Formats: sequence, C-alpha cells, structure tokens
Amino acid sequence: MYKSADLTTIKPFMTGADMDRADQIRVDPDKLAEVMNWRARLLKLDALVPGITPEGGLLWNSLGELGENCEPLFLGMQEGKAHFVELPPRDGTARPVQYDPRVWQAIAHMPRADLALYGAARSLVDWHNRHGFCAVCGSETHVAKGGWARHCSNCGAEHFPRVDPVSIMLAEHDDGSQKRVLLGRQPRFPAKRLSALAGFIEPGESIEEGVARELWEEAGIVVRDVRYVTSQPWPFPSSLMIACIAQTDDPALTLDTTEIEEAHWFTVDEVQAAMANDPEAPFIAPPPFAVAHDLLRYWLDQQEKN
Amino acid sequence: MYKSADLTTIKPFMTGADMDRADQIRVDPDKLAEVMNWRARLLKLDALVPGITPEGGLLWNSLGELGENCEPLFLGMQEGKAHFVELPPRDGTARPVQYDPRVWQAIAHMPRADLALYGAARSLVDWHNRHGFCAVCGSETHVAKGGWARHCSNCGAEHFPRVDPVSIMLAEHDDGSQKRVLLGRQPRFPAKRLSALAGFIEPGESIEEGVARELWEEAGIVVRDVRYVTSQPWPFPSSLMIACIAQTDDPALTLDTTEIEEAHWFTVDEVQAAMANDPEAPFIAPPPFAVAHDLLRYWLDQQEKN
Ligand SMILES: [Zn+2]
Ligand SMILES: [Zn+2]
Repeated sequence: MYKSADLTTIKPFMTGADMDRADQIRVDPDKLAEVMNWRARLLKLDALVPGITPEGGLLWNSLGELGENCEPLFLGMQEGKAHFVELPPRDGTARPVQYDPRVWQAIAHMPRADLALYGAARSLVDWHNRHGFCAVCGSETHVAKGGWARHCSNCGAEHFPRVDPVSIMLAEHDDGSQKRVLLGRQPRFPAKRLSALAGFIEPGESIEEGVARELWEEAGIVVRDVRYVTSQPWPFPSSLMIACIAQTDDPALTLDTTEIEEAHWFTVDEVQAAMANDPEAPFIAPPPFAVAHDLLRYWLDQQEKN
Repeated sequence: MYKSADLTTIKPFMTGADMDRADQIRVDPDKLAEVMNWRARLLKLDALVPGITPEGGLLWNSLGELGENCEPLFLGMQEGKAHFVELPPRDGTARPVQYDPRVWQAIAHMPRADLALYGAARSLVDWHNRHGFCAVCGSETHVAKGGWARHCSNCGAEHFPRVDPVSIMLAEHDDGSQKRVLLGRQPRFPAKRLSALAGFIEPGESIEEGVARELWEEAGIVVRDVRYVTSQPWPFPSSLMIACIAQTDDPALTLDTTEIEEAHWFTVDEVQAAMANDPEAPFIAPPPFAVAHDLLRYWLDQQEKN
C-alpha cells in the first residue's frame, strides 16, 4: 500500500481516499492508454452530484459508459483498476454549484474513503468546468496530463487545478481562571449555528500570518502563538482548510459585520454541551463533516489532558 | 499593532511583513481613493526586480511616480501611509521570471520585513501579469478590489490571486540506534546541494496526504505520523510552503529520477556538519532563506532535546 493508515491522529471527513493517484501514469500517454481497458471504472456526476449505490457508496460505471463529448479524467489506481471521473462538455457557467441539497444527502451516509474520492473528483471536474480558457492569452485550452492540467496550444501555458489554502481557527483566551474559545456566525448560517472563523490565505502570508490577519480583520483581536492542528480538503469548490488555534491576551471584540453577524467566547462546559447536541447549549456546533468540528473536539480533548 | 511579534517560534524568511493589509480599504473604492494621497508610497519593480536603497531596503517612490498605463495595487497601510506596487501593462508572457540573478542579489541583504513585503508584491504583480483573461469565458479582465482580484465584465466572474500549497518534508527513520532524515537533489541543483523533498498539494488531499503521496511518488517510501512544523510564502511564483516531518519504518528507496537525481539518509552529525557549512560535510545544506533550512534546524533542535 502506498500510504499508512496512521498518517494522522485527527481524521477529518474528506480525507482517507484509498487510491494511488499514480502520477507516473498521468504524465505518460502510453501508460494512460494501457489502463483505459475493460477493467477501468467511471464515476459520473450530474451537475456535480454523484451516483450512489443502494448501500450509499459511490456508483461506479464501466468506462464504456462515457457520455458523448465527455472526457475521462484519471483519478488513480485501486486494486489494479484505473478509476476515472467523467468531464461533461463545458456549460459556460462562471460559478460552481455550491449548495445542491442532493449533494449533502449523498455525502451524509457515504463511506469515508468514497467521500474523500468524491471530493477530489468533484474539485477536479468543477475546476475544468470553470477553466476552459487560458488566463494568459484568452484562447481555449484542452485537457492534459490525464485531467490534472489544461494546456494552451496558442501560448504554450500549462494550467494546474487550483487548491486554495484557507485558515480556519479558534482564538483562545485564558483569563487566569478559565479558558474560552471564540466562535462566530456568518450571515448565511441559521440562528445559533456558530463555527470557527476562517478566510483565504493570501500571497505573501504564512499560515500563521493568515490566521492573525483574519482574527484582526473579522474580530479585531491580536493573537500570538498560532499552533497548527489539522487539515482538510474541502471541495466547495477547491479549498484546503488549515485548522489552527491562536492565543489572545485581550478578548475585546470589534466585529466586521459584513463577514460575521455575531461572535462570542465559550467555556469548556459550553462547548462540551454544544458538541453533545444538548438543546440547552448556548449554540449549535458545526456538523461532524466540517473541520471546525474536529478543531473543537481537539480543543476539548486538550483541556481534559491539562 | 494588528498582530503580535510572537506568532510563531520558527520565523522563516519571507514572513514578518510589518503592514496592515487593510481589507476594509481594498473593498471600498471611496476609502481607497482617500488613501491615494500625497503621503502614499509606491514600489516599482523592473521585470519583478525591486528598487533598492543604498542601505539595502526596498526603495519607495511617491505615488506620483506611477508610470504611464500602469496601475497601482494596494499593499496596505503602514504608519498612516498607503503602500502600493506598480503593475506595468501586460507583456503577454506566459511564464514567470524565476531565476533573475538580480533578484537574489537584492534579497540577500534586505531587512526581513522588506523581504516579506517584496514577496507579497511580487506574487501579486506576477499573478496579474499572467491572468489578463477570464478562465471561464476568455474575455479580458480588469483589476478589482485594489489589486486583490480581477473582474470579468463579460461573464461576471471574479478571479482571485492564486496561492499554491506545497508540502515540503523530511522523512525520518529510526533504526533503533539512531535517527536519520531523507534529503534529495533535484536535477537543477548543483552537485552536493541537497534539500527536503517537496511537491504541490492536489485537490482532494490534506496536507498530510500530500506529504505521504510525494514521498511515495518520489522516493518509494510509505510514511506514518506526519507532523506539521512551519510554513512560508514563497513568491516564485505563488507557493505556500508547508513544512512537515513524517516517520517511515522502511528506509528502502525507489527514486523517481525525473524528479530527484539522488536521495540519501543522513544522521544528526552529518546534518549538523552541513548546517555548519563544514567543507567535510557529505552534502551542502539548503540556504537560510529556504524553509528546508528551518526544517533541518528544527529537526536538529529536537534531537538535542531528546
Ligand atoms: Zn494561452
Ligand atoms: Zn468571463
């Protein structure tokens, strides 16, 4: 096997795909042609919604089911079989389909390895959908490297799928008697649903500097001692969530209300109640598939150890 | 001040910019117009090479020095002054200027805060240079949000500067009597210059999974227990270097020689000699401005603690 099951102690949803991406096949058209045989399997997405088996797993077709004018993107090798996802012809839509309720139904009961694979496939298809033209010269581009690049035959530029790093963080304040963490509500969240603050890391920033800037911009707090906790690919459309905890000495908040409608500090007991889905809890915790859930669970575990 | 000096214990080069990016100004054309006053400062790059003062710092001009057909990109606020970098008209070049020796001369003696700011400015200018057209529809795009986006007036798409997360890692093997780490040489490196292995994190992967895949692809080893160490923005052209250490139980190597020409395991003493620039050392260590240097220094420090 190409990797160990013990990569990490925290195992966020969307991680744990059980497939060798087989880079050496991707980049070699002969090898790629060789694995496109009768054993090869194909995932079809309908507006990015996956087909699902009666057991709740990803529904694999044979490669012969590839639709007209569609292209196969190579996901990797598993048990000697090549796995592909179908790229439909571009529909010219600028925006990714973000909140199709069928997606959330499909992923709610999916085995974790399938979910991780779906995330990769979805991100890849969605990127191709929205990147049919060369950003350098404006010409049409075409699929290259088995689906892991697009090539411009006009100017020669190669374009690779985006992965957008996002810092997502708990600020922690210790007032000497107890520790509390900061959670906020984005305008699009339902009432009482709070989560960790988050934002894209920008050019010229480290992860830790991105954490500090977000907490300054959104909550008006200054932090020190940023610690990395875990990471999660988040395919809506192509984020890499990087979860951290940062310390602050001054818990006074100045909210940027265009980004978050409310934010509050919560004690261990309050977070514990929310994570246990206690109806008396002061907030509703982020759902288990969100890395903010793993972050809060980690924070609670750390408090118990101390 | 908007952030603490104590964000992290490890402080890689290219971090530590001392400027508030002032997101609330970027997104508000009125506020942006207001700070474009006689106090505003402008950084000019010549093919991405910065102007340098006699003392070795970044050379700032007044905003009035903005060239014909150039656009100012807003870097942020420092001491009440708005800071911009000049975006020249696009030259239609597909590839970033990567190895201009003048850049390495300029950054070799630059104060660290200036270096970090140059990195952000360079990444931003370079991204605009190579993203003049809309990837969704192929139309020309124009600068938006003070330089932190490009907008397509044909299809409405908004495009944001890329940040490409890269995992860079030491594999560590403990044979029971001593620990060793794996370093390799890329084909473009000079003889004896070794460094940590590295590769882009792909859609659908966590940081830790990216580390495991790279070590599998490039060196043929299976790892467990990936630990995050530090991160560094690397503006050639827009990487976010994420430095990790991973454990392996089997040190046998199978190299992908298109990616690395050689790779070897080194003991604490050997790494120590290389980091001390000992001419007898079995390899030449990565230079101090590379995060691989911080990673090796961290590894040595950890061994001393044990
Ligand atoms: Zn082109
Ligand atoms: Zn467009």
